[in-house]
Amino acid sequence: MTKNVKVKPRKPSGFGEFLPNEQIAFNRLVDIIRESYELYGFVPIETPAVELTEVLLAKGGGETDKQIYRFSKGDTDLSLHFDLTIPLARYVAEHYSQLTFPFRRYQIQKVWRAERAQKGRFREFLQCDVDVIGSNSLFVDAEMISLVSSVFEKMKIGDFVVKINNRKLLTGFFEFLGLSSSSADILRIIDKLEKIGKEAVRVELKSLGIEREKIEEVLDFILITGSNEDILTKLSGLHIKNPLFAEGISDLQTVMDVLALSDISPNRYQIDLTIARGLDYYTGIIYETLLIGYPELGSIASGGRYDNLASYYTKETLSGVGISIGLTRLFSKLKELGLIETKTSSSSKVLVSQLDTNLLGQYIKLAENFRKVGIPSEVYPVKDKLKKQLEYANKLGISYVVLIGEEEVKKNQISLKNMHTGEQITLGVNEGIEIVRNNPL
Amino acid sequence: MTKNVKVKPRKPSGFGEFLPNEQIAFNRLVDIIRESYELYGFVPIETPAVELTEVLLAKGGGETDKQIYRFSKGDTDLSLHFDLTIPLARYVAEHYSQLTFPFRRYQIQKVWRAERAQKGRFREFLQCDVDVIGSNSLFVDAEMISLVSSVFEKMKIGDFVVKINNRKLLTGFFEFLGLSSSSADILRIIDKLEKIGKEAVRVELKSLGIEREKIEEVLDFILITGSNEDILTKLSGLHIKNPLFAEGISDLQTVMDVLALSDISPNRYQIDLTIARGLDYYTGIIYETLLIGYPELGSIASGGRYDNLASYYTKETLSGVGISIGLTRLFSKLKELGLIETKTSSSSKVLVSQLDTNLLGQYIKLAENFRKVGIPSEVYPVKDKLKKQLEYANKLGISYVVLIGEEEVKKNQISLKNMHTGEQITLGVNEGIEIVRNNPL
Repeated sequence: MTKNVKVKPRKPSGFGEFLPNEQIAFNRLVDIIRESYELYGFVPIETPAVELTEVLLAKGGGETDKQIYRFSKGDTDLSLHFDLTIPLARYVAEHYSQLTFPFRRYQIQKVWRAERAQKGRFREFLQCDVDVIGSNSLFVDAEMISLVSSVFEKMKIGDFVVKINNRKLLTGFFEFLGLSSSSADILRIIDKLEKIGKEAVRVELKSLGIEREKIEEVLDFILITGSNEDILTKLSGLHIKNPLFAEGISDLQTVMDVLALSDISPNRYQIDLTIARGLDYYTGIIYETLLIGYPELGSIASGGRYDNLASYYTKETLSGVGISIGLTRLFSKLKELGLIETKTSSSSKVLVSQLDTNLLGQYIKLAENFRKVGIPSEVYPVKDKLKKQLEYANKLGISYVVLIGEEEVKKNQISLKNMHTGEQITLGVNEGIEIVRNNPL
Repeated sequence: MTKNVKVKPRKPSGFGEFLPNEQIAFNRLVDIIRESYELYGFVPIETPAVELTEVLLAKGGGETDKQIYRFSKGDTDLSLHFDLTIPLARYVAEHYSQLTFPFRRYQIQKVWRAERAQKGRFREFLQCDVDVIGSNSLFVDAEMISLVSSVFEKMKIGDFVVKINNRKLLTGFFEFLGLSSSSADILRIIDKLEKIGKEAVRVELKSLGIEREKIEEVLDFILITGSNEDILTKLSGLHIKNPLFAEGISDLQTVMDVLALSDISPNRYQIDLTIARGLDYYTGIIYETLLIGYPELGSIASGGRYDNLASYYTKETLSGVGISIGLTRLFSKLKELGLIETKTSSSSKVLVSQLDTNLLGQYIKLAENFRKVGIPSEVYPVKDKLKKQLEYANKLGISYVVLIGEEEVKKNQISLKNMHTGEQITLGVNEGIEIVRNNPL
């Protein structure tokens, strides 16, 4: 059956996969996200990876259109989804009558984009999205900020801050200055402030044909800083006569009030008028999350409020709030920065070594007893030399090895070797299980 | 922004998705599988959905080749993976020097096949695979049977039995009869015995040009029944002089011996000489799993031992044992049969209702307290009529609603309404949390 000509085993360019130790660390983060989303009552859904191209591109015009994996099967024009927002809009529009609103859903799935292959860019990556559809309450906006904060607290990847702004403020301000027609371009330029600096923003705004005084007013405005309270006071002090601007301040104030009632630590959120979010569907509160000390990561979780998610599918108005964590990119950066531990390559916490084939029944029973209390364990499958069995545990980062010979069986004991300290003790079975159970190693 | 022309929100034919209540039930099964695989020490890996077509089809010749989703991007010929076995072979061959053997991995991912659209056939489905690569020990074969049994015990979907056979027995037997050259065809026909019956098998075997006496010997052989012990005794009694046949008996005996030492109940596994498994890479012990009383489901978990998984990628011999659960199909059948509960459409166990906006801080704190002990909960986002809030909880199947007004705050109490019984009691916060925590509803 063996062919002589081998095909070189390799992946397509731009597609990655993890070694077991990395996958374990990655899955730990997925579990934290999933658990956090569920603790806030969000329900999981999954949509097909493959959508009808006509449906996926109904909105049209985006940059992502060019990055799509598109193919035909028979007469059908299909594409891999490139985000989870459009599939959510399709899902809600399609199942509208069967859903209960507000619809609180999360969705953790891979998405595909045929981006230019370069470091830090992935053509397949995991998106972790959470949205509430069908609630105008600002309580939900604040809840999202609490939720994202709880996720990163649990990840223990260092200090972070959720930067908050309101599109209404920006839009109202541009209206006031008579710059509404350029607002999309201005937002796009403001969004780059952190990256390109104040002077470059000035130049780019000028290239839009905006008068110098107005450019300075825009810059003065977005550079307002201080505590959350300070910023809100300064904004009110601008006396900008525009209803949307006024609403923008009042909405931000409400979100700050709700956050003050929540568990979230006050240093985890901060109003930042430079946050603009490139995406055109946001209409209200918007946010980005930064890891303190690592600005080069960019935002690790972003989102905001939108008025109408699915106007291209349905006449129902699907307003809501969402947040998205791009975990593949985040994980890759955290690994580079050494903020992720990847020491273990096995799910087992215990290896039951095989010293005497006559005792196989004892070995199997012991592994089962560990499993019964939720401790992953395995029996080494053959009676190899002990050294080889210990080496196996060592290479995989399995914390404990159990050794049982005639002596231990007679006394109804086990020998338990801690592979991190090298320490080996002989003790009763249940005592051994308790030690392993209580040791987080 | 709203276009007047709407695109009908719909999925491609053959692609499915779940409503929230179904997704919760589905994920519960995924969690059971994942937890079971991990308790046995299997490590997770994930491979890209997209592979190079040349790599994916290196083995060639399979029926699945025609069912592939294949597309080009630039000069690259790509395909969606249609199983997890070939990606595993590619993964192990590619990362061989970085892996520790025996390599115990599980992989739970969607796969895609452009099958003819029909009921019970899915073009996207979730495969839950588990394999040990690089161990010849029969202990591992037995372990797989224990593992699959533990999965279905936990699912509580009714009685099941793992049917076990050995390819060596079949191959040795055909050698003995001088039918080796037809063995692949004979296996394919035998595999259909359950479906088409003895007479049709006879006819099909005849059409291969096999002599009548030999057909009867084949049928007599595969129809040997009885207890596991009986079957092994009868097989030995056939006095078939063939080394592979003898090995087949001895291997089965070893697996039975190991299973007898394990937790698995004796009525959960049974030697069945009619099990042949269509796939050509199996070379040793093979198994299928049947739900008792529902033969129409076919096998709900199948697998076996193979000698050489990746001969088309590498000169390393990757022998191993694997098992696969096709969960999408299984779930769909279980749902049809009413064996799956889908009552809940929310992750929340508790809804904190909003009766008085001045008490929002209390509501938020209470929801956070539930979450701290692992109970998913949410605050209703606005002060709607209580009736509407209760209706929301009711529609979603949320078990408890908490009501707090001025009265409760004064007494530092909460009112807890059990939505299943309608019963409402007023009690201390911690007592309330304990009641919810201890109620599995």
